[in-house]
Amino acid sequence: MDTWLPTLITDTPQAGYELAVKLSRMSVKLTQQDAAVRDRLRAEYAVDSDALIAVSQVVATHFATVAAANGYWT
Amino acid sequence: MDTWLPTLITDTPQAGYELAVKLSRMSVKLTQQDAAVRDRLRAEYAVDSDALIAVSQVVATHFATVAAANGYWT
Amino acid sequence: MDTWLPTLITDTPQAGYELAVKLSRMSVKLTQQDAAVRDRLRAEYAVDSDALIAVSQVVATHFATVAAANGYWT
Amino acid sequence: MDTWLPTLITDTPQAGYELAVKLSRMSVKLTQQDAAVRDRLRAEYAVDSDALIAVSQVVATHFATVAAANGYWT
Amino acid sequence: MDTWLPTLITDTPQAGYELAVKLSRMSVKLTQQDAAVRDRLRAEYAVDSDALIAVSQVVATHFATVAAANGYWT
Amino acid sequence: MDTWLPTLITDTPQAGYELAVKLSRMSVKLTQQDAAVRDRLRAEYAVDSDALIAVSQVVATHFATVAAANGYWT
Repeated sequence: MDTWLPTLITDTPQAGYELAVKLSRMSVKLTQQDAAVRDRLRAEYAVDSDALIAVSQVVATHFATVAAANGYWT
Repeated sequence: MDTWLPTLITDTPQAGYELAVKLSRMSVKLTQQDAAVRDRLRAEYAVDSDALIAVSQVVATHFATVAAANGYWT
Repeated sequence: MDTWLPTLITDTPQAGYELAVKLSRMSVKLTQQDAAVRDRLRAEYAVDSDALIAVSQVVATHFATVAAANGYWT
Repeated sequence: MDTWLPTLITDTPQAGYELAVKLSRMSVKLTQQDAAVRDRLRAEYAVDSDALIAVSQVVATHFATVAAANGYWT
Repeated sequence: MDTWLPTLITDTPQAGYELAVKLSRMSVKLTQQDAAVRDRLRAEYAVDSDALIAVSQVVATHFATVAAANGYWT
Repeated sequence: MDTWLPTLITDTPQAGYELAVKLSRMSVKLTQQDAAVRDRLRAEYAVDSDALIAVSQVVATHFATVAAANGYWT
């Protein structure tokens, strides 16, 4: 697999948040490796509020890690 | 995308809590980019106690991060 | 909005726990601003064990933050 | 309300775990104050594996806090 | 109750993971004290992917605590 | 059981993420030890967006631990 996570360090909190989103998506990719299936599932959960909130929870957990790694950008 | 997260630092705990709410909503926005769909979903989950509690959980996770970033405002 | 969170510091662990409960409820309030709807939802989830457990999870997450802010009251 | 949480400090890890269980139950008590309703709900979720696992999650979150408060008893 | 948690310290990360599994199961045991009921529930959730994933989440939370207690075995 | 977790230390963040995925799967393995059942369950949840998101949450929790163990690779 190509390098997709060279570092947890980002220039800004916002870039750190975007990295958290990427970290959230990557584990779906590793479990379901068929891009067509992932596209179909994404179309489903993008209109399902429970799923969207659950995704937010995963992002929040990763953001905590990225923020700590960056010393909270302070 | 515009800058929406320049810093995790806030003047008060309450402003930190409001930032946590913003951080929670932003990942829904990044996954479902159609504002009309988001409005419809929000109308649904605003009257669904399970969804409201799940949103609270996301806010709590982000608040932990924001509070740590601010040294708990002490 | 009025000041409802001036500090995370409390005199005792128990007061910290009560603050965690308050922090949990506040995000429901910010998402569903109609008090009558909130009262109806609360009546529903107060007899729903899954919802009560989910609320407990949110309180636990906030309590971790409040406890850390207070140096665990030691 | 009586004092039910004077300290997070316990003599042993096991006593800390028992405190985590107590912390988990207390937020249900604060949300649903009718003991008869709580007894009925508990009878239900004690035979519901999803609910039992969800309770375990709350205990795990509180145990993390209690363990940190005690310097992991080391 | 007998002593079942004398320490959070383990010799290896793997032993720490096994302790996390034990910590996860113990709170089910404390809530549902009838071993026959627990066996029946376990038979059910062992073939239920949602439940298995939820159990994994509890283990992950406890593993974080055990790992911190052991200074990450480094 | 063979040694499957000798250390939490990895060379790169990406290898740490892969270890988090492994840690997530291992607790399913310990609860459901029949490989054929696990294969069937995996086939089910690989096309179930709720389950995939729940798995992501477990990975995120383990990744936080692995990242802390590695001092965030900085």
